[in-house]
Amino acid sequence: MLEIKIEKTTNPKPIPDKDNPLVFGTIFTDHMFEMDYTDGKGWHDPRIVPYHNLELEPSAMVFHYGQEMFEGLKAYKTEDGRILLFRPDKNIERANHSNRRLMIPEIPEDIFMEAIKQVVKIDEAWIPTKEGTSLYIRPFVIATDPFLGVRPSYTYKFMIILSPVGAYYPEGLDPVKIWIEDEYVRAVRGGIGEAKTGGNYVASMASQMKAHEEGYSQVLWLDGVERKYIEEVGAMNIFFKINGTVVTPMLNGSILSGVTRRTCIELCKSWGVPVEERKVSVDELEEAARTGALEEVWGSGTAAVISPVGHLRYEDDVFQIGDGGIGELSQKLYDTVTGIQLGKIEDKFGWTVEV
Amino acid sequence: MLEIKIEKTTNPKPIPDKDNPLVFGTIFTDHMFEMDYTDGKGWHDPRIVPYHNLELEPSAMVFHYGQEMFEGLKAYKTEDGRILLFRPDKNIERANHSNRRLMIPEIPEDIFMEAIKQVVKIDEAWIPTKEGTSLYIRPFVIATDPFLGVRPSYTYKFMIILSPVGAYYPEGLDPVKIWIEDEYVRAVRGGIGEAKTGGNYVASMASQMKAHEEGYSQVLWLDGVERKYIEEVGAMNIFFKINGTVVTPMLNGSILSGVTRRTCIELCKSWGVPVEERKVSVDELEEAARTGALEEVWGSGTAAVISPVGHLRYEDDVFQIGDGGIGELSQKLYDTVTGIQLGKIEDKFGWTVEV
Repeated sequence: MLEIKIEKTTNPKPIPDKDNPLVFGTIFTDHMFEMDYTDGKGWHDPRIVPYHNLELEPSAMVFHYGQEMFEGLKAYKTEDGRILLFRPDKNIERANHSNRRLMIPEIPEDIFMEAIKQVVKIDEAWIPTKEGTSLYIRPFVIATDPFLGVRPSYTYKFMIILSPVGAYYPEGLDPVKIWIEDEYVRAVRGGIGEAKTGGNYVASMASQMKAHEEGYSQVLWLDGVERKYIEEVGAMNIFFKINGTVVTPMLNGSILSGVTRRTCIELCKSWGVPVEERKVSVDELEEAARTGALEEVWGSGTAAVISPVGHLRYEDDVFQIGDGGIGELSQKLYDTVTGIQLGKIEDKFGWTVEV
Repeated sequence: MLEIKIEKTTNPKPIPDKDNPLVFGTIFTDHMFEMDYTDGKGWHDPRIVPYHNLELEPSAMVFHYGQEMFEGLKAYKTEDGRILLFRPDKNIERANHSNRRLMIPEIPEDIFMEAIKQVVKIDEAWIPTKEGTSLYIRPFVIATDPFLGVRPSYTYKFMIILSPVGAYYPEGLDPVKIWIEDEYVRAVRGGIGEAKTGGNYVASMASQMKAHEEGYSQVLWLDGVERKYIEEVGAMNIFFKINGTVVTPMLNGSILSGVTRRTCIELCKSWGVPVEERKVSVDELEEAARTGALEEVWGSGTAAVISPVGHLRYEDDVFQIGDGGIGELSQKLYDTVTGIQLGKIEDKFGWTVEV
C-alpha cells in the first residue's frame, strides 16, 4: 500500500462551538486527504494536508461533464473516548460501484480505508460528542483534465473533507412531511441513479424547492418509466411498515443502495420482523393508508440516520401515518443504530471500525 | 446594463499553429469572461481578465451536487476580416432554459451577448481561418457555495472561455458509424435531458466507451421509458431522410433543443423539403433501411455542424445508409450552414451577428 504523507497545519482554526453545529455541512476541519490519479500511473501521492482551496483550470472536465462521485459517512466519539466509524467498508464498496458507472478509476480499498482513519484521527478534536452530533466524512472524486471534448478524464483528484454536524433535518427526530413527486423524475433504470453523483442531486432540486414552498421537507421519487412505483427520497431510502411487515423498494438500478437501508433490513430480520424488498406502488400505499394498514413510514440515510415520516402527499391526497408521531419500530431502529454507532450498545454484527 | 471591466494580459501566450488545432478543446486563449452571482445581490462584477485557474473550496457545491450549466457556440473569421457569431441569441435563450431547470439564476441576455462579443473581440487574433476551423466559445456556470447540504447554491460563477478548434470528429465530413444503445439510458422525460448540464454527459460515457471499443464514433440514445424511440446522439441531434421527407425526433423534454437542429429544419423547409418532427422508432428505421427508403442520416451540432452517418448498428443488426458516402441533402446543409457561418453565402435569415 502507498504511504500517506502527512503535513500538519501550522495555523489551526479555532474549533467553533462544535457541540452545536447549527447548519449541516458548513464548517470544515483543519485537514483534508488528497490523492491524484494520472492515466498510466494510477492513483498516486496520497497525503494529508491542511484544508485548502483547490486550484483548477476553468476547462477542468468536472465543471462541464459532471464526472464526479461522492460518499458520506460519519465518525463518532464514544463515552470512553474511542473513535468509531460505522460500516466504512460499505461506503468504500459503493464508491467503487459508482466509479465504475461513471468511468472513474476505482480507488484501492486499503488506501481508501487508511485515508479515512488517518484524517479522522488527525482532526479527532473536532468530533462533537453531544447527542445527535458526529463528524461527517465526505470522500469525493473529481475529473480534472483541462479538456472540452466528451470522454472520461485521464486525471482525477480524490479528496476527503470533514465537517462536524448536528441533525440533518431541523425537525430532528420529529416526523417530517414528504411530497410524492409526480412530474419530475430523478433517475431511470439504465441511467446513473444508483451512482452517488452530482447529476442525480441537481435533477432533484427543482422538485425539492417546489415541495419546500408547500411546507414539505423532502420529495419521494417515483420510477422514471411508469411513475407508479416508489423509489427513494434522494437523501434517504424509504421504508413502510404495512400490517406488521417492513416493505422497502427493491434495488433496481435507479435507487441508491444505502448503508443505513441495509442496516435497517438486517436489524429488522435479526429481530424476527418480516422484511420485503420489492416493488411498492403509490396505489398500494394509498390503499394501506386508507385501511389503516400503513403503520409506520421512515427514511434511512447517513445524514439523518432514521427520519420518521408523519405525513405523505400525492397529488391532492394527503395521508397521515399512524398518529403522526414516531412509530415504535422507527424509534427502536434509531436507538439501536445510533447506540451501536456511539458504542453504547454491543456491536454483535461487527459493523463498527475503531480508528 | 452592467459595465464590463477589462484587464488585459501582460503576458500573452504564443498562439500555437492555430490553423491546425489537432485536438478539439485543448488550447485556450489569453482571456476569459467572469461574472459572479450572490443571493440578494444578483449577477455582479462582469469582467474580462487573463485566462487563469479557478480557486474554489473543496466543499464548493459544483463538486458534489452537479449544479453546472454550459453552452457551446462558435466565432468565425470571414475572408474580408469580419468576425461572425452564429445565432448566439439561441444559445443564450437555451442557457436560461437550462438554468431554470437546474435552479441556477438566469443570466441577463444583454450582458450575456455583450460578454461573448467583447471577449471574442479581445482574442480575435486566436480565431483560426483554415477551412473547418473556428473559435469555440464555451459559456458555463458553476455553483460555488461551500456547503454540503442539498439545495440550490446561493452563489455562482459564470465564465466564458475560448478555444481555437478544428473538426470535432477525426473523420471530418466522412460518414461516422453510430451505435444505437439498448442498455444504458441518457435521460428520461421529467429529468434533466433537455438541460445542457454535466449530469447528462457523464451518464453517456460508459456507453460511449463501449461503442468506441467496437469501432463506433457515437451512441444514439433511445427514450428512457420504452427504449424504442430515437432521441439524440449526446453531442448531436439526429436527422433521417426517409422517402424524400426529413424526419427528426420531436422535442419531448429529454432531448436537447439544438441550434443546428433548428437551423437544419428551417433550411430544409425554405428549400421546400418536407420536414416532420415526431416520434421515430427503431423499428421504423430498420424497416426503412431494409426497403431502401432510408436515403440519408446525419447528426447536427455546434461542434461538428453536420456529421453524415454511414452506418447504424442496433443489437446485432447493422445497416448501411445509402452508398455509405455523404448524402446530397447532408452535403447541401453542410455547405449552406458553414457558408453562412463564414459569410460566404448571403444570410437571408439574419442568423449571423457581427462582433
